[in-house]
Amino acid sequence: MPLLLPSALAAGSTVGVVCPASAVTSKDVAPFVALCTSLGLRVRLGSNVNSRSGYLAASDQARADEFMRFIEDPEIDAIVCARGGYGVMRILPSLDFAAIRDARKIVMGFSDITALLISIEQHARLVSFHGPVASSTFDAFTKESFVGSVFGSSTLREQTDHTEHAAMVQAKDVRTLVPGVARGRLTGGNLSMVVSTLGTRYEIDTTNAILFLEEISEEPYRIDRMLTQLWLAGKLQSCRAILMGYFRDCETRPASRVTPGRALMQVLTDRIGTLGVPAVYGMPFGHVKSKLTIPVGVMAELDASTGRLSILRPPLTM
Amino acid sequence: MPLLLPSALAAGSTVGVVCPASAVTSKDVAPFVALCTSLGLRVRLGSNVNSRSGYLAASDQARADEFMRFIEDPEIDAIVCARGGYGVMRILPSLDFAAIRDARKIVMGFSDITALLISIEQHARLVSFHGPVASSTFDAFTKESFVGSVFGSSTLREQTDHTEHAAMVQAKDVRTLVPGVARGRLTGGNLSMVVSTLGTRYEIDTTNAILFLEEISEEPYRIDRMLTQLWLAGKLQSCRAILMGYFRDCETRPASRVTPGRALMQVLTDRIGTLGVPAVYGMPFGHVKSKLTIPVGVMAELDASTGRLSILRPPLTM
Repeated sequence: MPLLLPSALAAGSTVGVVCPASAVTSKDVAPFVALCTSLGLRVRLGSNVNSRSGYLAASDQARADEFMRFIEDPEIDAIVCARGGYGVMRILPSLDFAAIRDARKIVMGFSDITALLISIEQHARLVSFHGPVASSTFDAFTKESFVGSVFGSSTLREQTDHTEHAAMVQAKDVRTLVPGVARGRLTGGNLSMVVSTLGTRYEIDTTNAILFLEEISEEPYRIDRMLTQLWLAGKLQSCRAILMGYFRDCETRPASRVTPGRALMQVLTDRIGTLGVPAVYGMPFGHVKSKLTIPVGVMAELDASTGRLSILRPPLTM
Repeated sequence: MPLLLPSALAAGSTVGVVCPASAVTSKDVAPFVALCTSLGLRVRLGSNVNSRSGYLAASDQARADEFMRFIEDPEIDAIVCARGGYGVMRILPSLDFAAIRDARKIVMGFSDITALLISIEQHARLVSFHGPVASSTFDAFTKESFVGSVFGSSTLREQTDHTEHAAMVQAKDVRTLVPGVARGRLTGGNLSMVVSTLGTRYEIDTTNAILFLEEISEEPYRIDRMLTQLWLAGKLQSCRAILMGYFRDCETRPASRVTPGRALMQVLTDRIGTLGVPAVYGMPFGHVKSKLTIPVGVMAELDASTGRLSILRPPLTM
């Protein structure tokens, strides 16, 4: 089944905000609504915004229904998840991936949403977007990457090798673990959630991939355990490159934002440094204030020596 | 390949203590050495006792070598792991499961050791033992179950339906989630480690199993995530019964040792209560002071209504 691209947004498009995982209030997403309005976009909040059931926004059925209603609603042009937290895995079996494919809508989020994004790319064969949730703060960097991604930036339209985002992140914020240049299909997300797909029918496919991974609040031995599970599953060995984000609050004393402490550095050296493919640490995506929006399923090139990520194909149809 | 039983210990047998995961000192295992001596057993400490390398006892090679040396040493009759922590997964590819099968030795531990026990049962086709580590405290209950398991208790030798251990745990400490009686092959261990096998060649086989699971220090949403991954992998649906231990320090206010709080109870109801097989919560094994030694791979019967676990076949050759 060929990979499809979602439709780019334009002035007047409507963004739907859904809660497939944990709960948000309308106040939590108010800055996002204001941002969209300033961009000429309309926003429709899903029925589970302002709902809560323990650590979930609503029942599995209600969360799956909310998502599928917006997929099928012709007045909704894109779907941005309100928040991660936990819960996406519970509704995957209730989603209609054929309908998701047919709708060709941008679906965006990160953290717990990772499992949804991977599933959409692999089961709907539709590009999805690892980017902010609607409850994220949007600094200038995050906003620029988000806007470029949903509208389709000029550089992407021209299919040049160097996107604006790539140029923006190659400079200071990335540490080279293994130098070199490689091309592959972008996939990944939050490490815990990537690992949570293993052994299931939603298991991540890393064949010829540039695998991007980030984490928050997991001790080095747990990161070791997760990377070791990926390694034992053969998922790391089949990658063309590894693009790590910042592993935030994962150790008591990181040397700096792009230099892990000794224990974490040892894990990354053992599990990533030995793969023989280009690898970087500290790229800005996921649980960081300034976050890139990364298309899942699209061919890209990583220059690990300079820390430059180039998206090689437009991820949207205009 | 038929399942083999390890050889029972006898007076004069030698127990080897190894460190396949995190570090211990000889002081940590001194009470275990004293217990063994009182039982007429000799103890040999592995070369990695008193060694430490970060959160690991020693390098992967050194830990794998220590384990395999004791497997192959004719003077060692059984192997008790010194401690869990983390690290077993890293050395699984370096173990010689054919040699482990040929040696037919008791291998025992819990927590991180779970992945080793499951691998031995499935790849060496040899019964292994989910029981104390050498740094555990041995109260009367733990000691009785351990001694009965390694020497082969009289009731087990007679192949009655009701072992001493079963009789001991059926009374007060277990909560029935789903009543009923079922027979199956015992497998399982620490939930995090069971889940960490998914997608790898060491993936747990739960076909017709009585799956036993326990956990420590994981929030209810994480237990949900792990049980949901097992469920999405089809691992829960193929079980004949679920035998849960105590999920210790997994919630701020458990109602009691055998009554989970609301969030955890909801998870267990959603993921275990809906399977249509007998299920109990609160059996004493794993991260609790008083712990059963449970043979992995052996046929057993769970009466979930009374909370009685009966081992149906002797797990050792005498």
